[in-house]
Amino acid sequence: MNKPLDVAVLPGSLRKDAYSRKTANALKALAPPTLALDIVEIGQLPLYNDDLDTSTPPAAWVDFRQRIAQADAFLFITPEYNRSVPAALKNALDVASRPYGHNVWAQKPGAIISVSPSAMAAFGANHHLRQSMVFLDIFVMQQPEAYLGNIGEAFDQTGTLTSERTRAFLQRFIQSFADWTTNFCKD
Amino acid sequence: MNKPLDVAVLPGSLRKDAYSRKTANALKALAPPTLALDIVEIGQLPLYNDDLDTSTPPAAWVDFRQRIAQADAFLFITPEYNRSVPAALKNALDVASRPYGHNVWAQKPGAIISVSPSAMAAFGANHHLRQSMVFLDIFVMQQPEAYLGNIGEAFDQTGTLTSERTRAFLQRFIQSFADWTTNFCKD
Amino acid sequence: MNKPLDVAVLPGSLRKDAYSRKTANALKALAPPTLALDIVEIGQLPLYNDDLDTSTPPAAWVDFRQRIAQADAFLFITPEYNRSVPAALKNALDVASRPYGHNVWAQKPGAIISVSPSAMAAFGANHHLRQSMVFLDIFVMQQPEAYLGNIGEAFDQTGTLTSERTRAFLQRFIQSFADWTTNFCKD
Amino acid sequence: MNKPLDVAVLPGSLRKDAYSRKTANALKALAPPTLALDIVEIGQLPLYNDDLDTSTPPAAWVDFRQRIAQADAFLFITPEYNRSVPAALKNALDVASRPYGHNVWAQKPGAIISVSPSAMAAFGANHHLRQSMVFLDIFVMQQPEAYLGNIGEAFDQTGTLTSERTRAFLQRFIQSFADWTTNFCKD
Repeated sequence: MNKPLDVAVLPGSLRKDAYSRKTANALKALAPPTLALDIVEIGQLPLYNDDLDTSTPPAAWVDFRQRIAQADAFLFITPEYNRSVPAALKNALDVASRPYGHNVWAQKPGAIISVSPSAMAAFGANHHLRQSMVFLDIFVMQQPEAYLGNIGEAFDQTGTLTSERTRAFLQRFIQSFADWTTNFCKD
Repeated sequence: MNKPLDVAVLPGSLRKDAYSRKTANALKALAPPTLALDIVEIGQLPLYNDDLDTSTPPAAWVDFRQRIAQADAFLFITPEYNRSVPAALKNALDVASRPYGHNVWAQKPGAIISVSPSAMAAFGANHHLRQSMVFLDIFVMQQPEAYLGNIGEAFDQTGTLTSERTRAFLQRFIQSFADWTTNFCKD
Repeated sequence: MNKPLDVAVLPGSLRKDAYSRKTANALKALAPPTLALDIVEIGQLPLYNDDLDTSTPPAAWVDFRQRIAQADAFLFITPEYNRSVPAALKNALDVASRPYGHNVWAQKPGAIISVSPSAMAAFGANHHLRQSMVFLDIFVMQQPEAYLGNIGEAFDQTGTLTSERTRAFLQRFIQSFADWTTNFCKD
Repeated sequence: MNKPLDVAVLPGSLRKDAYSRKTANALKALAPPTLALDIVEIGQLPLYNDDLDTSTPPAAWVDFRQRIAQADAFLFITPEYNRSVPAALKNALDVASRPYGHNVWAQKPGAIISVSPSAMAAFGANHHLRQSMVFLDIFVMQQPEAYLGNIGEAFDQTGTLTSERTRAFLQRFIQSFADWTTNFCKD
């Protein structure tokens, strides 16, 4: 049997009780054995600044870049801040795309889930992320799109996913993603 | 004579020699006397995290929010990172839009200039910014749009604007912005 | 008393029973006396083609351009087709923006309502429209944004608006739009 | 040897001498033998209207849907009208995506080239198209992105591609597209 794919999961909110983090945890339980999901932290990364990107860049950048370089695939779980991507998540994208010629996101499959307490499900963040991924050369899954609106109703107080509808959707989503990765992650 | 409008100018790159900063400096010299341009720093702001937004938020957030609340108008000068807004600039937008009910950008006029060493002039960053400004309720000037491509050729080694074409455009742009503000900043 | 503003209302769907059309009709009943709303048809316009834009362009284009040139302000009510603006509405924008130098949308206030049977309320169409309006130089109202999701539940079989919540929102929206126009439509 | 893939090429402008059409012709000459490029017309399609999509829809729609259903892959060559996709091209997307459940674009590889006489190379149209393709479930190639700016300088009076730089780019682009299709078009 093959080794499972190393899937780096990036929740876009830094809040400890963020819905993006709860969704990430729920996905870990639902993923098929061909995928190994690992939540990767992004809150410790200094804001990208070319002047710091010397031969000795910030240690947090170095570690993050290594982690991303190692991964086989990516799952982005994003809330929406001001109709776009949270700065913390955009910063993670920027950090691991530099310096020029060292974009470690490139040529790997990815997928996006947007989550929001509102009905509109962070559509704006979802598609702004997609625009960046064209340049980053991440092979983003098209369907099923994943818009989790009214997300506050899907989890109980302890952070457990209690919505059967959301669970069923995420199950289908993560299986579709496993299928999608097989287009690119050849033996 | 009226007091000039207090215009907060936000360069989107943290690099010391950034073109967005050089452009900001050039604009200061070209602005009519009705506008007082002041460059506001954004690199010191911790990444937005709701958990830190308590009754005693980070001092850098408090200062920045006060500065933005005080301003009459905004000029955003943005490069493009990965076909979208640099994280540092998105973070500044997020910080001064929170906590909920305390969006200090609201109901004031603004304008966007996108700058890039490439010919495409950071179009993607320009329009992603505009999407956020709908929610932030900043009255963004529509025309003239400002796309400064091949920006590397507009300045000399000392950071002085040497392109006559760019100077003429920026002169016209800042005068149009002064006119635009009069729609909203009544006596 | 001043003459009311002539507001051209453009529903984005050509379907006879379209929700965008029902919403347009509901708005007519809710508008304050300072605004005169008039529904303008777009389905008869041939697809824009520069080769037809001679000294004798299609009659439907000529009539539509005259109608738009006459209007003081615009209300766009758009559904979403394939995560963007319906072709019929984009075509109307294109037709009245040409030939170069004869953009009859320019320098007038406008507002956007997006409507959808789904919860996500045609967010994608709403913001793609906004991007075009930058170039068209329409002064689009920022707040309140108008996303009418689950629109099928707001009207009864006869096309009458029965949702009190939607009615209250549209009432507030059209009043805000009347206020917005006063920034630009001076005596 | 396998049959070459049937690639439907859609120029977004209806103008007889459109740069999108010239670019399509140039690509035909550059494509590797594994791809058979065929230019598909879109100007004859009536504007999408659900009321016409009965059991006997317009003949032009029926023919176009059959042509798209038959194709193995798609190349979209789009100019920019008002910072977005030309109505004619958006209409083609809409027509072949309906009625619900009969989206004949789905699950096939595609790529986008944006062309413009301006330096900004129709970036806005390029990325608005991409947003629609998420929903349409077209597997759009990420890299190389294709932005052909200053396109007027690439062709001579007869419509022949004379720019060596553009020719070299298009050669590389169409080869990359051939490689991209192999991820999805299995034997």
